Parts: sequence; C-alpha cells; structure tokens
Amino acid sequence: MLRDYDEPDCAVAKALAIFGDRWTLLIVREAFFGTRRFADFEARLGISKNVLAKRLGHLVEHGILARVEAGRYGARQEYELTSRGKDLTAVITALRQWGDRWIFGEGNEPLVVVDRATGKPIERLRIRRADGSEVPARDLEMRPGPGTRS
Amino acid sequence: MLRDYDEPDCAVAKALAIFGDRWTLLIVREAFFGTRRFADFEARLGISKNVLAKRLGHLVEHGILARVEAGRYGARQEYELTSRGKDLTAVITALRQWGDRWIFGEGNEPLVVVDRATGKPIERLRIRRADGSEVPARDLEMRPGPGTRS
Repeated sequence: MLRDYDEPDCAVAKALAIFGDRWTLLIVREAFFGTRRFADFEARLGISKNVLAKRLGHLVEHGILARVEAGRYGARQEYELTSRGKDLTAVITALRQWGDRWIFGEGNEPLVVVDRATGKPIERLRIRRADGSEVPARDLEMRPGPGTRS
Repeated sequence: MLRDYDEPDCAVAKALAIFGDRWTLLIVREAFFGTRRFADFEARLGISKNVLAKRLGHLVEHGILARVEAGRYGARQEYELTSRGKDLTAVITALRQWGDRWIFGEGNEPLVVVDRATGKPIERLRIRRADGSEVPARDLEMRPGPGTRS
C-alpha cells in the first residue's frame, strides 16, 4: 500500500486519536464483557480511580459509552456501549485473534468466542471482496476516497 | 459477553500491552503503506526522533518489524514488517472501517481500500461462522479456551 494523502485524512489516525491508549480499549473490552459500574471497572481492570474517571469521561465525550441512570430512583450511574461503541466488535475481535495467534499460539487460546446458537468458534476475520472471496494482503491498495480533500 | 477469567489470560490485554499507544500502531500503519526508513517514518508521522527510535525498537523487540540492511554494502538500516506484523492487517482494517463509519461518515471516506485485481472496495469486516454466515453481536459468547489455566 502506498500513501499519497495528508495525515488528517486517515481513519486509522483518527480512530487512534480516540483509542491510542491501552486503558481506553481495555475499558471498551470490559464494557463488551458486560461491566457497567465504575467500581466494577476499577476492580476488574486494576486501574486507579483518577485514570478510570478520565478515560470513562473521554469515552462518553466521544460517544462510545453513555451514562445511564440506574438503581432505585436513578441513584447510581452506569456506563453502557452506544451503537458507535458496539460497532467496535471487529476492532476488539481483530486484536483478540492477533493476540491468540501470535502471543498465546494455536491451541493455547485462553478464551474462545463462540456463536451462542451453535456453540462453535467464530471464524478468523478476513479481508473479503463483495462476493465473499478473500483478498490476499498483496492485492490490497489504497486509493483516494470520496472524502478526499482536493 | 460475560467474563470469568483472569486478566493475564486475555489476548486483547496482551495485544494492547504491545500496541496500547497511539504511535505504535501508527508506525505499523505507516509500514503497511510501504515506509521503511527512519527518516521517512519521522517525516511522515511528525514524530520526534527520540520517541520514534524507542517505538521502532519496541516493535523490533516484539517481532513486528525487522531491521534489514539496505543500501550499498548494507550501509543503511531499514524496517520491514515480519509475518507477525503483516498479520495486523485485520486490526488496521477494523480501525480504519470504524473511523470511516463513525468519524468521517459514509460517502466521506478519505481513502478506500480496494482489491487491486478488480479495483473494487473491500467489504466491511464481519464476524462469521465457519459456513460464512454472519454472527450477530448479541450471539457472541466468551468461553474458556484450550489454554485456560485451571
């Protein structure tokens, strides 16, 4: 892939400007696991209150988590993934599959993601054409898109 | 997804321990674009020499980039993606597709990734079953894998 465009015009750079910090994506992962309360994020991640509050605020500000009232009469706030947040499934899955493959190694995966309906593991994410066939990495090419500044 | 396992046993956490920093994945993205030389990474990313040297060293240490001799009589070192590094295509693609969808918005993508053979854009990454059908997010479930410590 060759590049011939300006830095601000890259979705990877823009996405990393939001997530380019270990805690931020770990909080998102934790939210996917069903964690909703401040104290639970704190305990499960072993993160300081101060850093957690900042990162949660950052994720709310960027529309990835939403604060919702919970408990009797809305006495407590919880955090839940928005649509924008839930759409990070592929990002988290790609990171998990890479880590399983290259850090733990095949046959040593600590967790498997299965389809609840069949109990079978999901497939590895692959780059595909519209007809479903896989595109080999060497055939991927970057071209200016419809939003290119000119 | 519910969790019932220990932190060290999560591939997302392990992967983020390597990549949980904006520059690290931007350097990888840059390497995918074909950048190989220190001075080119520096100029294209607008990163300080000091930080770049550390992050490149970190990526070499983790086997994602390799230092190769280049130029006449190996007078110069260049950096290239290893197999482990090239296998980050899905991670970078998932980040790009998320950013295109939620930051730029449909129809405003600054770049498109196409299949060189057909010139057509690649599909959005989807979580699939072995038969190729898509698994809806609500059907994804985490289970202990073969490498679970017990």
